[in-house]
Amino acid sequence: MASLEEKRHTLAHLLAAAVAERYPHAKPTIGPAVDNGFYYDFDFSGGAAPKEGDLASLQAAIEELLPSWTDMSGTEVSKKDAEDRFSGNPFKLELIKEIADKGETITLYTSGGFTDLCRGGHSEKPAHDIRVGSFMLERIAGAYWRGDEKNPMLTRIYGLAFDTKEELEAYQTQQEEARARDHKKLGKELDLFTFSELVGPGLPLWTPKGTLVRDLLDAYVFQLRTKEGYQKVEIPHITKKELYETSGHWDKFKDELFRITTREGHEFAMKPMNCPHHTQIYARRQWSYRELPQRYSNTTTCYRDEQSGELSGLSRVRAFAQDDAHVFCRMQDVKTEFLKVWDIIHTFYPTFGFELKVRFSKYDPLHPENYLGDTKVWDTAEDMLLEILEEKGIEYMDGTGEAAFYGPKLDFIASDSMGRNWQVATIQLDMLQPERFDLYCINENGDKERIVMIHAAIMGSIERFLSILIEHTAGAFPTWLAPVQVLVLPISAEKHADYANKVAVALRAKGVRVELDGANDSLGKRIRSGKNMKVPYLLVIGDAEVEAGTVSVESRTSKLDPMTVADFSELVAKEIEERT
Amino acid sequence: MASLEEKRHTLAHLLAAAVAERYPHAKPTIGPAVDNGFYYDFDFSGGAAPKEGDLASLQAAIEELLPSWTDMSGTEVSKKDAEDRFSGNPFKLELIKEIADKGETITLYTSGGFTDLCRGGHSEKPAHDIRVGSFMLERIAGAYWRGDEKNPMLTRIYGLAFDTKEELEAYQTQQEEARARDHKKLGKELDLFTFSELVGPGLPLWTPKGTLVRDLLDAYVFQLRTKEGYQKVEIPHITKKELYETSGHWDKFKDELFRITTREGHEFAMKPMNCPHHTQIYARRQWSYRELPQRYSNTTTCYRDEQSGELSGLSRVRAFAQDDAHVFCRMQDVKTEFLKVWDIIHTFYPTFGFELKVRFSKYDPLHPENYLGDTKVWDTAEDMLLEILEEKGIEYMDGTGEAAFYGPKLDFIASDSMGRNWQVATIQLDMLQPERFDLYCINENGDKERIVMIHAAIMGSIERFLSILIEHTAGAFPTWLAPVQVLVLPISAEKHADYANKVAVALRAKGVRVELDGANDSLGKRIRSGKNMKVPYLLVIGDAEVEAGTVSVESRTSKLDPMTVADFSELVAKEIEERT
Repeated sequence: MASLEEKRHTLAHLLAAAVAERYPHAKPTIGPAVDNGFYYDFDFSGGAAPKEGDLASLQAAIEELLPSWTDMSGTEVSKKDAEDRFSGNPFKLELIKEIADKGETITLYTSGGFTDLCRGGHSEKPAHDIRVGSFMLERIAGAYWRGDEKNPMLTRIYGLAFDTKEELEAYQTQQEEARARDHKKLGKELDLFTFSELVGPGLPLWTPKGTLVRDLLDAYVFQLRTKEGYQKVEIPHITKKELYETSGHWDKFKDELFRITTREGHEFAMKPMNCPHHTQIYARRQWSYRELPQRYSNTTTCYRDEQSGELSGLSRVRAFAQDDAHVFCRMQDVKTEFLKVWDIIHTFYPTFGFELKVRFSKYDPLHPENYLGDTKVWDTAEDMLLEILEEKGIEYMDGTGEAAFYGPKLDFIASDSMGRNWQVATIQLDMLQPERFDLYCINENGDKERIVMIHAAIMGSIERFLSILIEHTAGAFPTWLAPVQVLVLPISAEKHADYANKVAVALRAKGVRVELDGANDSLGKRIRSGKNMKVPYLLVIGDAEVEAGTVSVESRTSKLDPMTVADFSELVAKEIEERT
Repeated sequence: MASLEEKRHTLAHLLAAAVAERYPHAKPTIGPAVDNGFYYDFDFSGGAAPKEGDLASLQAAIEELLPSWTDMSGTEVSKKDAEDRFSGNPFKLELIKEIADKGETITLYTSGGFTDLCRGGHSEKPAHDIRVGSFMLERIAGAYWRGDEKNPMLTRIYGLAFDTKEELEAYQTQQEEARARDHKKLGKELDLFTFSELVGPGLPLWTPKGTLVRDLLDAYVFQLRTKEGYQKVEIPHITKKELYETSGHWDKFKDELFRITTREGHEFAMKPMNCPHHTQIYARRQWSYRELPQRYSNTTTCYRDEQSGELSGLSRVRAFAQDDAHVFCRMQDVKTEFLKVWDIIHTFYPTFGFELKVRFSKYDPLHPENYLGDTKVWDTAEDMLLEILEEKGIEYMDGTGEAAFYGPKLDFIASDSMGRNWQVATIQLDMLQPERFDLYCINENGDKERIVMIHAAIMGSIERFLSILIEHTAGAFPTWLAPVQVLVLPISAEKHADYANKVAVALRAKGVRVELDGANDSLGKRIRSGKNMKVPYLLVIGDAEVEAGTVSVESRTSKLDPMTVADFSELVAKEIEERT
């Protein structure tokens, strides 16, 4: 029985065969399996190209061909033979030349009378292995030959493919749900952020609602950090080149750095991370071991010169605010400090219903060249992290080879409500930068002692965390985080506005974020708008409520019994206070 | 009787004469009056140069020459004569050529047998006008010929000069006080900010204490803004060039912009101001007149490529956080919105004991080319501002010609505790950017109506405001703003630490920022350290306090009677709450 990948690869051939039948002028190029199906890139420049509306008929053609594809097998051919067969197709000729130049064998695969240049990895019995209904042509897009924009633009046809019809349908349902939860779509609907053509791609602008959400998240992280003795610091977004030459980031990040030449000819860069700047705050004076650890927290925007094609909503941006922190401490404090961050992470993520997994990212003894520093120091450092994991009695993933070049780390992976996994928080031990920046404290003996640094981001980047959170919650943030927590809706402007206003004032006095939606639109329309904005509580005010001095409460999931304003205030205030 | 400026200018000649006597190889160049005295630049490259230690003897030489300078008068000479007289001095020859090239007359001024090339403006009777004791040679510094670093380095000798000895002494006392209050010195002593050679000049790094002070100031401004309906927004620190081409800032600011070319070859710039970005937040959707004003508040770092030589502490930096706000409203809302900002400014500045003056910065009818827009619109706008000033019944300075190119403004000038004036807050009416960015609302008739923008910074830049505030208060911030509000000092570690700790915990529970300084140093040393750090309250804990359950309180100005912890907590909490 063929593997799913083999079946997907075979379907790419079937697609090419169907295209060859319907569009004889088409030049097939490359068609691999991908993680939800397959695609094939064609050059249709010699005639008509299929449109989205033609996919159903191509799908039918594949289904028609499939029964005749009983066997699929490969033959080794000479370069000459291959060139003769694909003489009219410059794309295939380029591939043939490459294979030959590498000294590899050239193979052709044939089934149902259709032959393609291919290195193999197919179903041997397509008609038997592949079920009608388990695959579906999905969409058409443009793609440059070999992904290079200097090359001709080809037409890419995507197909979805799974083992069974049920799996295909489940995937489609999940995709639909993901589309409905797409943070780019919801971000606009909920009026959280925007982009401007004049400002540029990958540079989100934050609206009042979006800024409020960011600030609330950031304040929550800092509240957790304050308990552990962290203090805020602030730094500029640029630096002289020299800082990154010393830290080692200049070489490592040089392609992604936004660089600046000043009018006096000095080279500066925008910061892609904050650690080198923070070392300079530590280095401003000499420290006694008694004053350590120094714990610096700083939510600040970092900049990376990402390529336009890779930018996507808030997931991949050029400007992102890191909720960064660095702890400057002695080696002997590392375990305690890691545990503090561990606790913060394990308080923060469950607040939103994320489940956490941890990966122990370690040195790879087979590739010592990837790391800096003495193996003895690495052993000490990894033992320390292992001790933490054992003390926590938690299952963890082995991340051998996943350490940073400067030290081992614990990476945290959050599972969202759709079962997707996202690497989020991280705690890293850094023995390298303290060396490079000569950071030390004066120890009990009056000697200079090299210190270590711990890097600890909780959200990582607020932008990326928000993209995950929006999709995880479908925009229905917990009440403490909702930009508008309560929407008051008087049924009639004349009769109920006064009381509605009193209710709003009473709730605001409790610190609740209330909006009043007067009676310009019908009640139904206003309720729908409130629900679309994912407001946690809608309060409808009519005669009955005014008379009884109550409110009728509709939460996002249910209608509650009418209650007094005081009771409702208490309920909401408690929910906000407890972040439930 | 000669004016002070004429006397200062004459003293520069006297200095040149004294130098010529003592240093015959010296080549005098240029020697003007400045606003506290005078200076003269000499080329000493032909022999020895005076050092700071030689100033007293040069001063004596001037005092000796003075009585012989009974008259000072000028003579017109030909270019040839002037060149002959200064034939050995290439600096003077360059000046002579320039004067001649411009077709101006060349004059030489002589007194006491000393002649110098000069355009005049002296005391005619130096010996009579200038009093011994009213001037003093101050210091020596290097200066490039004509301020250009490509030219030879000269030696500049500075002198102070006033009408009387008393005025000179008063100036020196004020200078001494200013040096003691210098924010660069106090910023380091109070551990508020630091600079790093690796990060670069003009880019302050903020320590935990400094960051706390910044955040408290910013939170105070936002608290005042919140009452007036402002909301926070957030923006990236960079933008595509196109944004500034549209706003008109690209041309205006191009020398001061930090520019970036991305790896894909696009031109970006770091933002030197925030208004163009904020227009893009407003422009994200269509607004009904009912939804206006939109009031966006944003404390965010701006960047300007200042020249290294102009950078100074926090007063002139390359990175500065503006507490910026923009109101998008209809013309008819301008007065109300100006008054809201007026109130914020007049709450904020008096909190620190600053006195405010206001300048009405208007259109200059003699120079219409300096402004954009219709004079009728200007009249309407200025009338609106005048109405505000009249309603306030306040005296204001006339600022004809001080308007921004896009509209009139109200500028606020604060007087500090040393009588110095600083332009601080500003409220500006902008009719230009809404035009350039096509910002509008839908009015009552369903038509598009052009809106206006109000720019309103309260502190201006936090860096500059802090430099002023530190010098105004000599670092003794009001209690609500002090990084450490109370310092608890147990006399003996063994006997008083427990109680001291309880006091600290009790105060922290009230939200007071307390530090405990254990008994590692002598009490005297710890008290001095607390006073140096300008901590508002020092609590000394000894046997008597432990026994009576009280604290002995020393404020920055006086010793208070012992009081209970509860009473003291209340006193401090009230002071913080009321920002007194």
